[in-house]
Amino acid sequence: MGDLHVHSLLVTGANRGIGLELVRQFLGMPSPPAWVFAACRDPKGQRAGAGTDLPFVGSAEVTDPASIKAAAARVGEHLQGSGLNLLINNAGTAKASSLDDETLENMTQIYTTNTVGPLLLGQAFLPLLKKAAQGTPGSALNCSKAAIINMSSSAGSIEEVFLWNYGQVVSYRCSKAALNMLTKCQSLRYRDCGVLCAALHPGWVQTDMGGSGSQKPPLRVDESVRGMLKVLSSLSEKDTGTFLDWEGKVVPW
Amino acid sequence: MGDLHVHSLLVTGANRGIGLELVRQFLGMPSPPAWVFAACRDPKGQRAGAGTDLPFVGSAEVTDPASIKAAAARVGEHLQGSGLNLLINNAGTAKASSLDDETLENMTQIYTTNTVGPLLLGQAFLPLLKKAAQGTPGSALNCSKAAIINMSSSAGSIEEVFLWNYGQVVSYRCSKAALNMLTKCQSLRYRDCGVLCAALHPGWVQTDMGGSGSQKPPLRVDESVRGMLKVLSSLSEKDTGTFLDWEGKVVPW
Repeated sequence: MGDLHVHSLLVTGANRGIGLELVRQFLGMPSPPAWVFAACRDPKGQRAGAGTDLPFVGSAEVTDPASIKAAAARVGEHLQGSGLNLLINNAGTAKASSLDDETLENMTQIYTTNTVGPLLLGQAFLPLLKKAAQGTPGSALNCSKAAIINMSSSAGSIEEVFLWNYGQVVSYRCSKAALNMLTKCQSLRYRDCGVLCAALHPGWVQTDMGGSGSQKPPLRVDESVRGMLKVLSSLSEKDTGTFLDWEGKVVPW
Repeated sequence: MGDLHVHSLLVTGANRGIGLELVRQFLGMPSPPAWVFAACRDPKGQRAGAGTDLPFVGSAEVTDPASIKAAAARVGEHLQGSGLNLLINNAGTAKASSLDDETLENMTQIYTTNTVGPLLLGQAFLPLLKKAAQGTPGSALNCSKAAIINMSSSAGSIEEVFLWNYGQVVSYRCSKAALNMLTKCQSLRYRDCGVLCAALHPGWVQTDMGGSGSQKPPLRVDESVRGMLKVLSSLSEKDTGTFLDWEGKVVPW
């Protein structure tokens, strides 16, 4: 993690699970970021902060374009002219479902949060990410300069269809396959802006989402996040538009 | 095409382009299907039939669960106890857009038609597809027995991002990547029902959708459809859950 020097970052879905642990580990670094914007849907809600006293950027509902734009404006004000180095689109949702009982409502709701949200956040924060890229020496892409990291899942790998027998969750899988496509499109569009884009698979983690079934996931949240931060620190030009797991291994599309 | 003996099939989006040509070529076979259900959103609309006198199954709006269920019921009545061999989810939509100008509305609208529609159609027609599978001798999967074919696109290949410089169309690409995931999930779920599932890339075809830009697509509709019918006739057990182009070549996810 020695190579990850981030002045500012924003994490969505930061009130619990992987999002909260990302915030914790960034703040616990030897030289922590000056700005950690921890965004979640309902900062005053019961589960927000989960007993910590983390600073929240206020409400940022990733399915509401106006809420996202307002969050970007507030972040811009806080940064007072400097850019945002890292946008981690971590907010996501899933609903236990089989192919037989998926509905139109479920499909569109999960797509909106998991795929459209990251698209809208990328659009809204692009000016701040560009500013960070322009303000950082060197032309090569990396996460200390400017990056969008989309929290995906091997469950969204069409090749692997990870944990099919554990849960079909077709709406979730479709949304994550689409998120991987979005990541690729963002990498092609934002490369010239100096912004690296990548999708990550955090592993099967002991969170509310990962551990809601009958089996206990093998990975602790802190292990997953430690691995992902190491991966982030290693990303360079050649990694933009890729899909990697928490250990840095390429996940097939 | 000698190996494709289909008693009944349904094609969505059959009023023009690839859908209409699929209907034409099926009807022009030496031993044509007894039932060709040509579905489209608005059978009485100006563009329906495009000057032909093809029989339409009445309205089937692929974004409306009630309309889909009604269409399945009508098809079941026509078939009088026999099953449906082939469901071709051909209906699709696209909107010229760049990553910068995609909106929540555009993303969800295109996802609903291109991804959720095929999911709902698969659910609604599964009983008829099962019936066809049970009524056909032999246990191996093939398109003459029972199959769902989803019209996808290499534009939805995360690996290829086909024609990126021609049009970013991120909403379309995300919906087709998700459709590929759906196809894989359908293949896993419906295998035991005797239903083969595959995604096809028709090529870059001279249709309203393919040819709306400044460049002329290289492929005529009749060539694309002739190729795809040949591919359908060759599909077997090992091909369920795959993504093939109009020449039978595997397209990477």
